[in-house]
Amino acid sequence: MEKVTVQLGERGYDILIGSATLPTLGAHCRTLGPGTAATIVTNQTVAAHYLTTVQSSLAKADFDVSVCELEDGERFKTIRSISHIHDHLVARRMDRNGLLVALGGGVIGDMAGFAAATFLRGIGFVQVPTTVVAQVDSSVGGKTGVNHPRGKNLIGAFHQPRLVFMDMNTLATLPRRELLAGIAEVIKYGVISDPVFFDYLEANVEEILALEPGVTAHVVRRCCELKAAVVADDERETSGRRAILNYGHTVGHALEAVTRYRRYLHGEAVGIGMVAAARIAHREGILDEDQMERQRTLLQRFGLPTEIPARIDRAAVADAMTLDKKAAGGHIRMVLAERIGQVKLVAFSAEKVRELVRGT
Amino acid sequence: MEKVTVQLGERGYDILIGSATLPTLGAHCRTLGPGTAATIVTNQTVAAHYLTTVQSSLAKADFDVSVCELEDGERFKTIRSISHIHDHLVARRMDRNGLLVALGGGVIGDMAGFAAATFLRGIGFVQVPTTVVAQVDSSVGGKTGVNHPRGKNLIGAFHQPRLVFMDMNTLATLPRRELLAGIAEVIKYGVISDPVFFDYLEANVEEILALEPGVTAHVVRRCCELKAAVVADDERETSGRRAILNYGHTVGHALEAVTRYRRYLHGEAVGIGMVAAARIAHREGILDEDQMERQRTLLQRFGLPTEIPARIDRAAVADAMTLDKKAAGGHIRMVLAERIGQVKLVAFSAEKVRELVRGT
Repeated sequence: MEKVTVQLGERGYDILIGSATLPTLGAHCRTLGPGTAATIVTNQTVAAHYLTTVQSSLAKADFDVSVCELEDGERFKTIRSISHIHDHLVARRMDRNGLLVALGGGVIGDMAGFAAATFLRGIGFVQVPTTVVAQVDSSVGGKTGVNHPRGKNLIGAFHQPRLVFMDMNTLATLPRRELLAGIAEVIKYGVISDPVFFDYLEANVEEILALEPGVTAHVVRRCCELKAAVVADDERETSGRRAILNYGHTVGHALEAVTRYRRYLHGEAVGIGMVAAARIAHREGILDEDQMERQRTLLQRFGLPTEIPARIDRAAVADAMTLDKKAAGGHIRMVLAERIGQVKLVAFSAEKVRELVRGT
Repeated sequence: MEKVTVQLGERGYDILIGSATLPTLGAHCRTLGPGTAATIVTNQTVAAHYLTTVQSSLAKADFDVSVCELEDGERFKTIRSISHIHDHLVARRMDRNGLLVALGGGVIGDMAGFAAATFLRGIGFVQVPTTVVAQVDSSVGGKTGVNHPRGKNLIGAFHQPRLVFMDMNTLATLPRRELLAGIAEVIKYGVISDPVFFDYLEANVEEILALEPGVTAHVVRRCCELKAAVVADDERETSGRRAILNYGHTVGHALEAVTRYRRYLHGEAVGIGMVAAARIAHREGILDEDQMERQRTLLQRFGLPTEIPARIDRAAVADAMTLDKKAAGGHIRMVLAERIGQVKLVAFSAEKVRELVRGT
């Protein structure tokens, strides 16, 4: 198994990346502490494929295992679902040494993490991400939370996992559309910090789409390394360094909000947001046309959408952006690329944002 | 104004203690950061006395002020109230630099703190405690949260305030019963760590009951110093050191739970819990009869209840104790006094607890 370590002192943890490794999860959890109770948080879709394996792996490692199954989908990422997890934990008398195991994609991970952050003022949790987007992004870095009817991830906390455990084989059952959406986040890492990795992605489109094992593990590992380095620098998004991870997310989040989290998968919205950000950067004279076009082309080669549909009101998108967490003091800070591998933060007034979004 | 500093590195903060100082609150908040938005979280009872002063003090310091008024009472300390605060913050587009100002007792402080901990993954908050129990206990140390139908404070997070600001004059409007309940927590500090302070309390019962200014400020300041020292040692209650603050709370919490948080004020339940803990310690041969009796007598001199009423089922109290957060691995850890000024942690099986609680 390959290992990436997130350097956060006493809150540091390992990311383990392997293939067909799910049956060893329990043994790895056993090393984390004295707790004997484990609750798996998952949804029915993921449960159908992997719950039995995870359950018996934990049981073999002497955990007293229970399962808290949630509805599948971003629209269930609400404070109500968190209360549902809490009720389950109270009913089984989970104590502070207990472990929550998030088995699923980003939605499951964000919710299980937030439930762990807020139960008994914080218990341990383990991420077992089963989607590309969760493996390369949401399961690393300690961001947890739920959506508010008026905006994505407005309610949440920073809470680092004790372990992130990835089995590449879980990607085999991932619907094609979700696989592609995750690749948008992968491309993002190339744009924000690694031009060589971006080149690698351009050269391996077919291999990635075929989930060729060596290529897949390399891609996931490289994304985790890049994210771990940024997170170690700026755990709580205060120095500005971590903000670069939001490339494509400012427009992306707004697009998800105005379409009520129903039309786009998160990665799809981020991909469209990256193209929008590239166009804004180009229009502002920061980014060359060629570097803008390479981003759009690569997303398109992976079959990802790149345009905000004509019938979506640009003013509503701009308005949703001002409610985003990244808005500070009335200004909207966007991550813009100067070239592939190098980004910077630029602050715009709400009015300027309206004008810029009209042009995307 | 007197100052106690809580030493927690980058999360450290000051506790300011004065009289008739409320009009200067805004100026002190102004020094905390660049934020211009402040939301006061309070209840109608406290608002009637102090909201105008606090509001205009913040406005004079150039804050854009809004007020989020909650229902008064422990039974409203629920996740629903937290969502109500979040809705208010979203509606007014509070950003990460915004400040929550908790104006009220422990319930308001716990809820405002938890709302701040979980909004945009953590925003700043200021405690303005207006009750004895909030001044000497709940506003210092970063514990925030709400109750679950099955147990007190089961849902919550650690989130340190940026400032704790106390005006002794606010105690003048405190109902007598709440004043007395707070004194139980004051007595607790003497028992857990300062025999000289316990002597001082025994010698100044009349002065404290009359809220004599010099005595009151000394008492509050000493409690804050004692608590700040413990919290600086063990911020997240992991080393065991902080657990001593729970003296009287294991039985106290259980008593509140079985009476559905309606019969006792928190401090009253803690006072009864202290007497129960003293009896258990005496029965276990840890504490002298005289040292047990001094605790009961001092509580009684302040007009506080000291007995679990005969009609309350001891088995139900014992059962509620096993659900308490302090239970770990099926054992219940209780803080027991060896003498006044010195306590230790003792672990009991659930069965032993049942037997011990029967004898209180």
